[in-house]
Amino acid sequence: MNSWGDKFRLTIWGESHGTQVGVSIDGVPAGIKLDEEDFATDLDRRRAGAAGTTPRKESDSPRIVSGLYNGFTTGSPLTIEFQNENTRSGDYSNLTIHPRPSHADWVAQQKYDGYNDPRGGGHFSGRITLGMVAAGVVAKKILGESVNFSTDIVEIGGQTDKTQWATIIDRAHHEQDSVGGIIECRVSGIEAGLGEPFFDSVESLAAHLLFAVPAVKGVEFGAGFAAAKMKGSEHNDPIINATGATLTNHAGGIVGGITNGNEIVARIAIKPTASISQAQQTFNFASGKIDELIIKGRHDVCITLRAAVVAEAALAIALADLKLRA
Amino acid sequence: MNSWGDKFRLTIWGESHGTQVGVSIDGVPAGIKLDEEDFATDLDRRRAGAAGTTPRKESDSPRIVSGLYNGFTTGSPLTIEFQNENTRSGDYSNLTIHPRPSHADWVAQQKYDGYNDPRGGGHFSGRITLGMVAAGVVAKKILGESVNFSTDIVEIGGQTDKTQWATIIDRAHHEQDSVGGIIECRVSGIEAGLGEPFFDSVESLAAHLLFAVPAVKGVEFGAGFAAAKMKGSEHNDPIINATGATLTNHAGGIVGGITNGNEIVARIAIKPTASISQAQQTFNFASGKIDELIIKGRHDVCITLRAAVVAEAALAIALADLKLRA
Amino acid sequence: MNSWGDKFRLTIWGESHGTQVGVSIDGVPAGIKLDEEDFATDLDRRRAGAAGTTPRKESDSPRIVSGLYNGFTTGSPLTIEFQNENTRSGDYSNLTIHPRPSHADWVAQQKYDGYNDPRGGGHFSGRITLGMVAAGVVAKKILGESVNFSTDIVEIGGQTDKTQWATIIDRAHHEQDSVGGIIECRVSGIEAGLGEPFFDSVESLAAHLLFAVPAVKGVEFGAGFAAAKMKGSEHNDPIINATGATLTNHAGGIVGGITNGNEIVARIAIKPTASISQAQQTFNFASGKIDELIIKGRHDVCITLRAAVVAEAALAIALADLKLRA
Amino acid sequence: MNSWGDKFRLTIWGESHGTQVGVSIDGVPAGIKLDEEDFATDLDRRRAGAAGTTPRKESDSPRIVSGLYNGFTTGSPLTIEFQNENTRSGDYSNLTIHPRPSHADWVAQQKYDGYNDPRGGGHFSGRITLGMVAAGVVAKKILGESVNFSTDIVEIGGQTDKTQWATIIDRAHHEQDSVGGIIECRVSGIEAGLGEPFFDSVESLAAHLLFAVPAVKGVEFGAGFAAAKMKGSEHNDPIINATGATLTNHAGGIVGGITNGNEIVARIAIKPTASISQAQQTFNFASGKIDELIIKGRHDVCITLRAAVVAEAALAIALADLKLRA
Repeated sequence: MNSWGDKFRLTIWGESHGTQVGVSIDGVPAGIKLDEEDFATDLDRRRAGAAGTTPRKESDSPRIVSGLYNGFTTGSPLTIEFQNENTRSGDYSNLTIHPRPSHADWVAQQKYDGYNDPRGGGHFSGRITLGMVAAGVVAKKILGESVNFSTDIVEIGGQTDKTQWATIIDRAHHEQDSVGGIIECRVSGIEAGLGEPFFDSVESLAAHLLFAVPAVKGVEFGAGFAAAKMKGSEHNDPIINATGATLTNHAGGIVGGITNGNEIVARIAIKPTASISQAQQTFNFASGKIDELIIKGRHDVCITLRAAVVAEAALAIALADLKLRA
Repeated sequence: MNSWGDKFRLTIWGESHGTQVGVSIDGVPAGIKLDEEDFATDLDRRRAGAAGTTPRKESDSPRIVSGLYNGFTTGSPLTIEFQNENTRSGDYSNLTIHPRPSHADWVAQQKYDGYNDPRGGGHFSGRITLGMVAAGVVAKKILGESVNFSTDIVEIGGQTDKTQWATIIDRAHHEQDSVGGIIECRVSGIEAGLGEPFFDSVESLAAHLLFAVPAVKGVEFGAGFAAAKMKGSEHNDPIINATGATLTNHAGGIVGGITNGNEIVARIAIKPTASISQAQQTFNFASGKIDELIIKGRHDVCITLRAAVVAEAALAIALADLKLRA
Repeated sequence: MNSWGDKFRLTIWGESHGTQVGVSIDGVPAGIKLDEEDFATDLDRRRAGAAGTTPRKESDSPRIVSGLYNGFTTGSPLTIEFQNENTRSGDYSNLTIHPRPSHADWVAQQKYDGYNDPRGGGHFSGRITLGMVAAGVVAKKILGESVNFSTDIVEIGGQTDKTQWATIIDRAHHEQDSVGGIIECRVSGIEAGLGEPFFDSVESLAAHLLFAVPAVKGVEFGAGFAAAKMKGSEHNDPIINATGATLTNHAGGIVGGITNGNEIVARIAIKPTASISQAQQTFNFASGKIDELIIKGRHDVCITLRAAVVAEAALAIALADLKLRA
Repeated sequence: MNSWGDKFRLTIWGESHGTQVGVSIDGVPAGIKLDEEDFATDLDRRRAGAAGTTPRKESDSPRIVSGLYNGFTTGSPLTIEFQNENTRSGDYSNLTIHPRPSHADWVAQQKYDGYNDPRGGGHFSGRITLGMVAAGVVAKKILGESVNFSTDIVEIGGQTDKTQWATIIDRAHHEQDSVGGIIECRVSGIEAGLGEPFFDSVESLAAHLLFAVPAVKGVEFGAGFAAAKMKGSEHNDPIINATGATLTNHAGGIVGGITNGNEIVARIAIKPTASISQAQQTFNFASGKIDELIIKGRHDVCITLRAAVVAEAALAIALADLKLRA
């Protein structure tokens, strides 16, 4: 299922080494001012190049091919495409006989009878998230300027002290290894009343999108897993004024699946990149025994760095969809 | 949005103090043997009565009113209803002026302009999960006998040692307080290849349903948040044989959003019940100032006890939906 | 698929001879005044009893079991149920070996492997349309009092002269035969701008629902099939004032799939009731040869009489769904 | 809503004078052999150039940009794009003040607050149907070689005698007028059992798609509107053998909303092209009075000629979606 959403509906397509990846967004209201420049900041945050990220460089220039006229959205689908430029040809047939551990290689082959495009992960590539980041930019425009997103990485390689991260990443790089991390997104200025119980709680929609992002293995809101250790008398957030503001915010801005106007807080656990350069012992389906696998190519040591803006986009998309429903 | 699912579609309705709550399941294949007795075990697991649960007792007898003929499902919607018997009338108007902290009272009023049914939480009541448990029973039938669910509570009140839970709950009860907990669901025997990327990963669908369950504030799969602290060389699960079995299972049976045939592992954080009997200081919209609120009525000290089977049902429903799509 | 709709979503269930049939409507805005009495007029229009309709009598009293509180809709699903009272037991096993011509007997058996409920047509029974009529009543409330529905039967048994219909129906009754007819629905007072191209044109949604109604075999809007015989210069509807009113209304109030504020006009062809009492020669799957079939039971000679309000409800539902999207 | 489908889901986008139009099809099974050449025949049938069609010529070469690898579908979305080449710039601002009769100009402006792309009809252009024709080609592949589509134009300008059509079209051309027509689609070789009552009958899905096609104003199946004039004893189709074949086929191959294995027959009424070159009297919103409008540009005299393959595609898409659900 490559479409998602009720009112703000995105459809994504493309493969890592195909001609292009894209997203089409249906349900964007007419009359939103939009420019290809508007995507630059968030696309930059997702781009490779920094320490800990893959050396594969792409210009990632968005091309809006439908739904925009005279600088404003038209109300018909907004389609945004990105060329795949920096693809290296290579022999990917090995992946079918010696699938990479914790990668989609083997399950994709099972599911699609071997017809999936294996090059660079194909449709399972993180490159697909370009479309989500682009859709996130549009979603933020729908939410309006009073809604602010603030996304931070709060942990890398088990370490919450940011001053140590460069060292951690550098060491992992030299050890041909990778590290995970935790992202925290905060959204302020959101109105109370968004969310459509029973099934479409804010948490449900946000988690649905977040768990679609490759490498996400945990999602929590407000106090999250820590809430399980609290007493009701500690965890409950007393309302303190007529706007619904609360003294504490253990709920992370969501009560009964609905926004209560306080800051939304979500934390997302990112596993360490599965592609590592060091040798791994894993099953070889040709030889029928466990064998050493060396994964070649360019890898992110810490994909958390680039995933932060994707997580933020996921949250923005969920909220925009709910806002358009309200 | 009170419907969910692509092939196994459930629609739930009802309020805590209305005449009944129900669920209608569309997409159930014809020819599944089904009996009202089949629901007994799971409904019992959800039922109140044990220490730590509310004294409100309901017979919770399922009544199948459509979709069953001669003991087999017909292929048309399966509707299951539960009478609300043990409802106490009372004055709920107070909730609109003195909403309970961390409850849906205030947001529901905002969202539905005060027209929502406030009695016992109305449509926000945990009683609505009866339908999910019933749907979970049907979902397990679709998954078949080779798929096994094993659900445990792994933490209550911050304590993983089960021998201490009775004491923890008892103490909270006497302190007119409540405690949270963590549930772990394991599913074995599931086939490889379920899951529909990009958006309908197994984690996405399961989390969507789990976060619809009242009191859930965190969801993780496999190593989950702990994965963020691991290196790729530790976290990666090497495949060890031709069936796709892995040496470790940090992925929790899901890679690239798709089942890999290994055990599915999910953990769910349940916040402490918001309804506590002790006095709370929170805003009174009539007086315009913070005031003492005493919540009367019958409460669960530890809703985790009853939520376990609901979480299991959510997982079963997500998997049944994906199995029917495959 | 027993659910339909984007914002006004109905789920129907039940079988002709089960305990009840019902409809659950999700997406009904909170705060609509509603009473079980509100359904009386339209349910009466659908009820049997007049000449040309089946003698099976049902009280068809709606029971609202969720979504209503203090006389107003709550914003959570509105569920309406109807008991099946006047069911005659009987032996329906014959239908599997000697299926009725132009009935769903044989295809249902093929599709559901013989597990479908055959009694009275089961889920294929016209009785299922009770839920649509009830939903139509709610849909009209959403559209508001300025929108008026006017539905007429314009042809019965090939005859447009209403004075002859009683005779036509009476004759068909004595010949143990049945007759078809054409229904015309007109909707005035509808705002311009409803409809969601490309796929959810007003005509698309209305036709989707209308063709779900048993016995409907043709649907046209405005000039419809007659438009195919016209020239552009005749067919085009010139706009005559600033409100978008048109001189003629060959478009039937819908241009480019969107309402233009003029009267919506739809015509629906109803085939003659398939159940007739006279002997029919059709295949007997037990004997393996063509055989005489006598259908027992109570039949409508002219189902068009009862289908008119169902068609009107279908149109109202489509428009309400689009209005809630706008 | 620019997406449609349950298992075979198409999303279309683009405007007549934008850079391109496209379609993305999600749910296409992996392993279908597909080539850009496969689209040639059906795209040719839709192409302009014959008498009665617009002189605007486009190469209409499909470009598959995702979902295909080594000549086979991959199971991820199949995206097909068409460049817009032969667009003439022009001043379309006049359409907002002097909207064309029976065109979407005025309603689009109402609905999208004037932000819609007016050039060549924008998203309301028949050019959008390129994507449907392309999707129809893929749909036919899914249905398989045993399913045959046969589509004929059965009436043009009110005339069923084909020998007169050239004259009719020629005359309309010289009179700067346009003519309508009726298309008949027949599908043989389809299996029994497709269709998902209650709401997703074969007729419902097919009509939903057909009424999305610009200029369609009527749809009927089997005997259609003529069925309304028949008696049950005439209309009923007796089954004649164990495969479910019927003596007559008044049902058009669909009973109870489900295919019965007999030939599917649908007829579609196409209104005369709204764009005609002769002067029309219609409201001028600038002057505030009725005024003469001359529509410039290139028009189809008889769009029925090009719509036939679009209607066939709509039917193929509906059937493919249902086949994938079965």
